[in-house]
Amino acid sequence: MKNILLASTSFLFGEEYLAYLKPAISELFTGVNEIIFLPFARPGGISHDDYVQKVALAFASFGIAVKGLHTFNDPKTAIMEAKGFFTGGGNTFLLVKQLQEQGLMSVLKDAVEQGAPYLGTSAGSNIAGVNMKTTNDMPIVYPPSFDTMSLVPFNLNPHYLDPDPNSKHNGETREIRIKEFHTQNATSVVGLREGSWIRVAGENITVEGAFDSMIFEQGKQPYEVKPGTQLHVV
Amino acid sequence: MKNILLASTSFLFGEEYLAYLKPAISELFTGVNEIIFLPFARPGGISHDDYVQKVALAFASFGIAVKGLHTFNDPKTAIMEAKGFFTGGGNTFLLVKQLQEQGLMSVLKDAVEQGAPYLGTSAGSNIAGVNMKTTNDMPIVYPPSFDTMSLVPFNLNPHYLDPDPNSKHNGETREIRIKEFHTQNATSVVGLREGSWIRVAGENITVEGAFDSMIFEQGKQPYEVKPGTQLHVV
Repeated sequence: MKNILLASTSFLFGEEYLAYLKPAISELFTGVNEIIFLPFARPGGISHDDYVQKVALAFASFGIAVKGLHTFNDPKTAIMEAKGFFTGGGNTFLLVKQLQEQGLMSVLKDAVEQGAPYLGTSAGSNIAGVNMKTTNDMPIVYPPSFDTMSLVPFNLNPHYLDPDPNSKHNGETREIRIKEFHTQNATSVVGLREGSWIRVAGENITVEGAFDSMIFEQGKQPYEVKPGTQLHVV
Repeated sequence: MKNILLASTSFLFGEEYLAYLKPAISELFTGVNEIIFLPFARPGGISHDDYVQKVALAFASFGIAVKGLHTFNDPKTAIMEAKGFFTGGGNTFLLVKQLQEQGLMSVLKDAVEQGAPYLGTSAGSNIAGVNMKTTNDMPIVYPPSFDTMSLVPFNLNPHYLDPDPNSKHNGETREIRIKEFHTQNATSVVGLREGSWIRVAGENITVEGAFDSMIFEQGKQPYEVKPGTQLHVV
């Protein structure tokens, strides 16, 4: 059965990397002593090795060893044999391009659907949705397609931000962007504020964490749901 | 010779549509009594017809008639015969997909390089750069490629925003996003604050408007240039 945690962000302001997620991560990876980390999103251009090192340090407190997927000669077999996964944040276009060009997206999807626990933060959460068309990231590279793993039957918008009523800036608000998405697509979108996450346990999908989440369904007014709410949107 | 105006935004906070650009638009379209408007970016999902109507109203004060490109049976010929162009803002992915799928991007590029005056705002400015990889927009549709018209030898980042030192939000700042772009691309990027624009007159390219602009060159610290500065970056 599916065992997935999709977080809006990897850390909260003023806190250490992954700190606020520790109880949830412990539960997700119960009985797991080694995971594969996918470093391809490279936040700020960090190297794959440095990114793995940062994650390994955070996971040492769980007694879980971390290996970077980029270090394997045969990454497909490595994915099929892995006990669990973490895909970190950064640039979703870069992440999706790497996974698709190396033929890894569908292998990872299969492994997670067969029960290997999966943790995503930010870009790593985006790729669990139907497609990456609701990412906030800059399109710095051109991936072969925008399709992602469909581990959940909707899209995510991590780092969801409410409109700032005092802003004098004309850049589109997050809500307007998602409305524009719905002029072209029918897929629902879950706006996850920083501090919130989605938990998938088998067929049961809930939103969790500190804040209400925003649900955007095509043709409806957006609405909020409280932590603990089961999601049935598609 | 090229005669181009690329604005960061179509209006300033509290002002009417295009108001702050009126003197510059008057100069750009000297002697022109009719232009073609490209409404494909559809901000907020506005219809093509409604978008043209909004633009026609603003251009009435210049004595310039406006026709929507979507109303022509043969848009390629319409572009080749046009006296000038305006491409409005909205979603850059939607705009680029339409132009590429209809085979209009290269026709428009040729017309502008042969001297037809071109006004772009926001998404309409993005497509004058080398590619759309530094847009701020959400990737709501998948265009055939990210290549754009290369009317200038660099990329633009419209609605450029300085990092907010008080923010507790973890979404990447504009500067970090452009730094990530430069881990994958060598093209320079001009960050245009709202109220600023780029003016191309033949081979002369200057930044204009109310604020300094930010220049990002690969491997260099970003730096600011004052209104009136000639740009030589590629």
